Amino acid sequence: PSKAKSRRQRWDVRPSEMANNTLNPIRAIVDGMKLTPNPEKPMIALSIGDPTVFGNLPTDGAVLQAMKDAIDSQKYNGYAPSVGYLKSRQAVANFYSCPEAPLEAEAIDLAISVLCNPGDNILVPCPGFSLYKTLAVSMGIDPKKSWEVDLQQMESLIDERTSCMIVTNPSNPCGSVFSKEHLQKIIKGCSCSSMASLSSDVPILSCGGLAKRWLVPGWRMGWILIHDRNDVFGSKIRQGLVKLSQRILGACSIIQGALDSILNNTPPSFFSKTISFLKTNSEICFNELSTVPGLNPVMPSGAMYLMVGIDMDRFPDFKNDVDFTERLVTEQSVFCLPASAFEYPNYFRIVVTVPEEMMVEACSRIREFCQRHNRASSTESTDLDH
Amino acid sequence: PSKAKSRRQRWDVRPSEMANNTLNPIRAIVDGMKLTPNPEKPMIALSIGDPTVFGNLPTDGAVLQAMKDAIDSQKYNGYAPSVGYLKSRQAVANFYSCPEAPLEAEAIDLAISVLCNPGDNILVPCPGFSLYKTLAVSMGIDPKKSWEVDLQQMESLIDERTSCMIVTNPSNPCGSVFSKEHLQKIIKGCSCSSMASLSSDVPILSCGGLAKRWLVPGWRMGWILIHDRNDVFGSKIRQGLVKLSQRILGACSIIQGALDSILNNTPPSFFSKTISFLKTNSEICFNELSTVPGLNPVMPSGAMYLMVGIDMDRFPDFKNDVDFTERLVTEQSVFCLPASAFEYPNYFRIVVTVPEEMMVEACSRIREFCQRHNRASSTESTDLDH
Ligand SMILES: Cc1ncc(COP(=O)(O)O)c(C=O)c1O
Ligand SMILES: Cc1ncc(COP(=O)(O)O)c(C=O)c1O
Repeated sequence: PSKAKSRRQRWDVRPSEMANNTLNPIRAIVDGMKLTPNPEKPMIALSIGDPTVFGNLPTDGAVLQAMKDAIDSQKYNGYAPSVGYLKSRQAVANFYSCPEAPLEAEAIDLAISVLCNPGDNILVPCPGFSLYKTLAVSMGIDPKKSWEVDLQQMESLIDERTSCMIVTNPSNPCGSVFSKEHLQKIIKGCSCSSMASLSSDVPILSCGGLAKRWLVPGWRMGWILIHDRNDVFGSKIRQGLVKLSQRILGACSIIQGALDSILNNTPPSFFSKTISFLKTNSEICFNELSTVPGLNPVMPSGAMYLMVGIDMDRFPDFKNDVDFTERLVTEQSVFCLPASAFEYPNYFRIVVTVPEEMMVEACSRIREFCQRHNRASSTESTDLDH
Repeated sequence: PSKAKSRRQRWDVRPSEMANNTLNPIRAIVDGMKLTPNPEKPMIALSIGDPTVFGNLPTDGAVLQAMKDAIDSQKYNGYAPSVGYLKSRQAVANFYSCPEAPLEAEAIDLAISVLCNPGDNILVPCPGFSLYKTLAVSMGIDPKKSWEVDLQQMESLIDERTSCMIVTNPSNPCGSVFSKEHLQKIIKGCSCSSMASLSSDVPILSCGGLAKRWLVPGWRMGWILIHDRNDVFGSKIRQGLVKLSQRILGACSIIQGALDSILNNTPPSFFSKTISFLKTNSEICFNELSTVPGLNPVMPSGAMYLMVGIDMDRFPDFKNDVDFTERLVTEQSVFCLPASAFEYPNYFRIVVTVPEEMMVEACSRIREFCQRHNRASSTESTDLDH
């Protein structure tokens, strides 16, 4: 028939627009880097935001036991409701009696998916974790940039197609933690000028998960908390979340089954140990790099990252932060992510979850590298850098 | 500023198009049913396609052990590559040395996402599992209907926007298994007339998973096998799958870590036990309902479902299959899914994974129900139903 004629004559299977539009800025940058370590020095990767890679930060025994109990019970092998077991959701609700906002990828995907249409824009932190851009662009949403404190810029970016603003707290890659006052200003900013009367009822979808806090990022267990005292979302957004959750039928049932026990039985000492480890390592790193001419580390107050500014003027050997970090691998076998990956050039990000001795060694190699390439005269550098 | 003026003056947070377009036909139908069981008879649910609900079909001990080993190893807590651990992928590749096609929701989402754009259409089985329609419609894709054998109809439905055809084998809800010959005809049909020269190289994305075969559907572990001997997909579709996998960062790392051992250590007797149980239960159900005037069960040869045709003429008390199954709950506390949920009216689907004595009891209640409502004269029914 004539219809058949119009068919493609040769196979020409092309990936969908969505696949084509799914871009991971970190991969785009890292895949373009020549990462050939110095064969004389063992590689130290300070690049991966995964606290488990070196084995020095195991999760708590109570978490493992909760999982084994869930497996042995044989009660969590079947399909869970797509929104999750009621018991697990209650456990999360109980655990978060005060607003907190850790972050989880699949929950974020859901949260963005329910709020945004193609052609909408969303405000994302800059510097900021690339996943938001990846998810947004793959859905035809245009991420405008906003910075953690610049409320005026934030206001100027909001228009009638702005469907949401993403706040990452603590920040990746900055390790910064917003004060309560600053968070309140952001919320006020969201509801500024024409929306002034709405300041008290900005609704929030807060995405959280086990990943970083319980040190099991691979388990892919997350949740969305709805903060919406004045019922701005109404039932429609909630129904939208339920519907979207049915597309993929929810998180792994075993981990859901273990969640109640994980949340309730992990001893507080587990969290304080993790935090004190991160603090110590951050201080080592900050103190070491503070005295390296040409580098400006920023002390973090949360998360597991530390940003280091590079005085590019002093390092004429390198075009930019990508070049700088690439050569740091070639010469010193130390790999840090260039902050261009977070749309924040002239910085690099250090992950502070590595074992202490590795952190010390990495810092001393970074110092050696910088001394070698720093082209400022020695007197000048002495003047400027204490 | 004037820009601010154009902002919405009241909060009006609406769910996205995608959320609005995510519809689960089963839910749409079931949520509309009045399901009030007869208080004098305990409820028997033959509706849920989950083999674990009654505890009579536990997964194998080797599967549980593999999970506990993966947990104890503490090697699978970190982020896995978004496409999965190499070791796990190799285990799947080894296990499927011959083409097979079990099905998994998230894998299906990926497979559809990589091939289809809004405005495209896809061919789905009718009757067929509703998830495909849910996923497709939520992405703005128009699912045209095709039936398992009607190759001519299939051909007539293909046009230049047809991006793929979904084959479910064995079928849900039919429990039918296509013969090798029939599958080959389908493939030939895909490449018919103007595409005749391509018949040998129809590329296939085969979605599989642990769910039904290992009796752990809640674990959400699936995979996509690429059958593409003549490299029709090329690297672009593969890259598209990789990119899309980065949106959600892959399946739970613990289960991935256990996968090799699950695939290799589950004894063959586990599968044969499951299959012989399903066969026995299907026979009980088929034999019982075959002798019920007005019902026409279809013996399945795979999966865990059995379809039963209803001679609606004989049951003037009921408008349709939805009405019929609703009243079956009210009177007999037996719940079967009306096949309208699979776009196949005048049938209902029975899940045959329930314990044998429940199956027997359910069949006798269905008989009682049909006898009560069958309005054909007794002689007529004797004539027609042996
Ligand atoms: C800011 C931010 N958002 C989201 C994610 C993804 O988190 P999860 O592993 O909980 O999905 C990360 C991971 O590092 C992150 O830093
Ligand atoms: C035909 C079909 N496709 C997909 C699914 C979803 O399968 P899974 O649980 O493996 O994601 C089912 C579940 O019953 C099904 O019957």
